[in-house]
Amino acid sequence: MSSAMSSAMSRPMLPFAARAEGLVGSVIDSSTSLLHRQQHDIVRFAMGSPAVEAVPSAVLRQIGVTALGPGAADAYDYAATEGDPPLREALLAALRGTSDETTADRLTITSGGMQGLDLFCKIFIDPGDLVVVESPTYTNGSATALSYGAHLLEVPVDREGMQVDAMAQLVEEAGRTPKAIYTIPTFQNPSGATLSLARRHRLLELARSWGSMVIDDDPYGLLRFAGDPLPTLRELGAGDPLVFAVRTFSKIVAPGLRVGWVDSAPELQQLLINARQAMDTCTNLPAQRLLTGFLTGGHLDDHLVAQRAEYRRRKEAMHRALREHFGDIARWTDPEGGFFLWVTLENGVNTTELFEVALAEGVAFIPGAAFSPSGRFTDALRLCFASTGPERTLEGIARLRRAVDIVAGGSR
Amino acid sequence: MSSAMSSAMSRPMLPFAARAEGLVGSVIDSSTSLLHRQQHDIVRFAMGSPAVEAVPSAVLRQIGVTALGPGAADAYDYAATEGDPPLREALLAALRGTSDETTADRLTITSGGMQGLDLFCKIFIDPGDLVVVESPTYTNGSATALSYGAHLLEVPVDREGMQVDAMAQLVEEAGRTPKAIYTIPTFQNPSGATLSLARRHRLLELARSWGSMVIDDDPYGLLRFAGDPLPTLRELGAGDPLVFAVRTFSKIVAPGLRVGWVDSAPELQQLLINARQAMDTCTNLPAQRLLTGFLTGGHLDDHLVAQRAEYRRRKEAMHRALREHFGDIARWTDPEGGFFLWVTLENGVNTTELFEVALAEGVAFIPGAAFSPSGRFTDALRLCFASTGPERTLEGIARLRRAVDIVAGGSR
Repeated sequence: MSSAMSSAMSRPMLPFAARAEGLVGSVIDSSTSLLHRQQHDIVRFAMGSPAVEAVPSAVLRQIGVTALGPGAADAYDYAATEGDPPLREALLAALRGTSDETTADRLTITSGGMQGLDLFCKIFIDPGDLVVVESPTYTNGSATALSYGAHLLEVPVDREGMQVDAMAQLVEEAGRTPKAIYTIPTFQNPSGATLSLARRHRLLELARSWGSMVIDDDPYGLLRFAGDPLPTLRELGAGDPLVFAVRTFSKIVAPGLRVGWVDSAPELQQLLINARQAMDTCTNLPAQRLLTGFLTGGHLDDHLVAQRAEYRRRKEAMHRALREHFGDIARWTDPEGGFFLWVTLENGVNTTELFEVALAEGVAFIPGAAFSPSGRFTDALRLCFASTGPERTLEGIARLRRAVDIVAGGSR
Repeated sequence: MSSAMSSAMSRPMLPFAARAEGLVGSVIDSSTSLLHRQQHDIVRFAMGSPAVEAVPSAVLRQIGVTALGPGAADAYDYAATEGDPPLREALLAALRGTSDETTADRLTITSGGMQGLDLFCKIFIDPGDLVVVESPTYTNGSATALSYGAHLLEVPVDREGMQVDAMAQLVEEAGRTPKAIYTIPTFQNPSGATLSLARRHRLLELARSWGSMVIDDDPYGLLRFAGDPLPTLRELGAGDPLVFAVRTFSKIVAPGLRVGWVDSAPELQQLLINARQAMDTCTNLPAQRLLTGFLTGGHLDDHLVAQRAEYRRRKEAMHRALREHFGDIARWTDPEGGFFLWVTLENGVNTTELFEVALAEGVAFIPGAAFSPSGRFTDALRLCFASTGPERTLEGIARLRRAVDIVAGGSR
C-alpha cells in the first residue's frame, strides 16, 4: 500500500481529457451545498426550488403506499430507457390540448431537464461549435455546452426576452452560423423575461435559415400567473426537426424526483435511447411511478392552479419589499410567472462581493456574474421569490439592504 | 405549421456531432423494452436484475412512510451534487471494515454505476484514446467509452478473469499504452469469472507502468456465495489516483433506485461535481433517503446474507437444469457469486439467430455477440440465474433447448 502511495505521489498529474478544462461547474448548484453547511438562519432566495409547502408530499406519499409497496416490487426494477410506459401514456394525456401536446414517437423521459441538455449536446455539439446563449442565461445549460467544447455567443436579453435582431448581428460579426440557439423563452432564468411572439417567430426563422438547432428549454411555462399565454417554440416549430424541447417536472411538481422529458424529432428517438444507455441506463422508476399516480389521479391541474396563485402572491410580496428597501438604489423585473426576479443595483456595489456579506447577514441570492459565461452583470443579482412566504421575504430583503449598505459603506 | 413541415422535409439531415456515430446503444437495455412488449409467458434470463422477491420493497415502503412523508418535504428538493449528506455518512459507515472502506473526500454519489462510467469517460477520454476492455465484457461500459470516441482493445477472459499477460502482449502490438483499463474483476459480467489475486496485482502493476487509469467496476462483489473473498482493486490500489472505483446499489438493493457511488482520488472530487452539474444536477433525493433508512436501519447485512443464500440456490438450480438439457452440446461457467452464467454452445448454433426462436418458445437470454464490441462469441450466451426461482429456471432451460434444436434442425 505504501508503495502504491509513493507511486501516486511521484506522478505529477492524471491523464485528463482535453474537455476536462471545460468542466466549469455551477455556482448555482454549489450554493446548495454551501447553504446546507450554514448553521445560522438564512433567508434563501438563491435556489430555483419550488416552495417546500408547494411540494405535494402528502399526495406523493399516499401514491407511494400503493405504487411502491410489496404488491409492486417491479417498481424497483430497471425502467425502459425511453421511460416507463404508464408514465409516457399519462404524460401524453396530460399534455393533450396544451402548447406542449405531442406524440409517443417524439417523447423521451429524462432524468430532469438538465439531462435533456446533456443529451442534446452529446448528439449535436462538436468541439468548436458555436452556441448562442442568452445574456444573462442559466449557466448550467451553457456549462453543458462548454463541457462538450462549444464556443458561446452571448446575446443580450431585455423585457421581451432575447434580442433576436442583436443575435442576427452578432452571428454576422462572428462570421459563422451557430450549431444551436439555447433559449429559455418563458419567465427566463434568471431575468424572468418572456420572449415575445414576434421574436419567437423571428428566432425560428433565423434558425431555419442558418440550419441551427433550437433548444427550447421551458421549465416554467405552466407557472404563468399574469398576462396571456404564448405558444411555445415547440408548438410554433411543430414538425421541424431543428426544434429540441426540454421539459421537466422539477418546477411544477418536485425537483428531487429528477424526472423530465424531451420532445424532439422522431428520427432522434433511437439515438436518444442509445445515448442514455451510455449515460445512466434509465430514469429512476419509483419517481416515475409516483408521477404516473400524480398525473392519472388528476392532481396536476389543481396543483398548478394553487401554485400559480401562491407564486403570484409571493412575487407581489417581493416587489413590495423591494419598493420599501431598494426603491432608491435598484431596478428590478416584473415577471408574469416562474420563480425569478432580476435586480440591478445602481449604486456601484459588486454583487459577487456582496454575496458573503449577505450570507453573514442571513440572506442568500445568486450573484449576476453566475449567469454569464464571461462574467457580466456584476451589478445584478437573481432572487427566487417562489421559495419563501411573504413575511420571510420582507425580512430577507431588509437583510439584503443591510448587506448592500455594509459593502457600499466600505465598512468591510 | 405546414410551412415548418415542408421546411423540415426539404432538409436532408440534422447537424449531428461526430460522436453521434459512436452512440451504439445497448442490446442488453433494449431487451428490457422488447420484453415489456411481449404478451406471452417468457422465462427471463436476459436482464441483470435482482429477483423481484429479493427486492426489499416492504422495508423500503415502510422507510418511505416516514422519510418521504409530509414531515419531510425537503426530501423532494434538489440534493447536494456530491450526494445527500446523510446517505454519504451512512454509506461510509456501512463500508467500514470492508474491502471498499473509504473516506468522505473520495466518495461521490452517482445515479447508478453507469453514471460512474460516464463521469470517468467525460473527464478522461479523448477521441482516439485506447481503452482496454475484457472480452467478453459488459458492453454498456464499453459503449460509454465509444460514445467519447475511444478505441477499444479486447482482451480475452478465462476462468481467472482477464488474461493480464495477453493484455500486455496486445498493448505491445498496438504500439501505444491505454488511457484506461476497464475491468469487472469480480463475478464478471457476463462470464461470471473472478480475477485472481495474482492477476489483480499484475494488472495494477502494468497500469502504473503505463500511467493508465484503472476502472474498477465491481457491482457484484458483495454477492459472493462460494469461495474466499479477494481484496478489491480499489483496496489493492489504495491511495493510487489511477484507480477509479465504480459501485452501485443496483444489484445489492434495487436497480430502479438508480443510486451508486464512485470512489476516486480526492483531487478528482471537485471535477466530478462540476461534471455532474453539467449532466443531471444531482441524484434523485427520495431514493437517497430510502437507502439512508435502509443502511441506518441495519437492513443491508441481513439482506445480503439472504440474497447470497438464495442466489447460490438459484445458480445450483441452473447448473442442474443445464446438466439435464445441455450436457451433450454445451459448457458453462461456475461463478462463485453475482448473477451470471456464460454458456458456450458446441453444436454450431449461432446465438444471435437463436434469440428470436427462443423468444417464441418463451425464454429470453442475451446473445454472446452483445458482449463484444467486435461481435465475437456468436456461439455463446449469457444467462442470469438471479431473477428466476428453481422450478421456473428448469422450465426456461428446457425451452431454451427446444429453441436450440429448432435452429440446429434448420426447421426455420
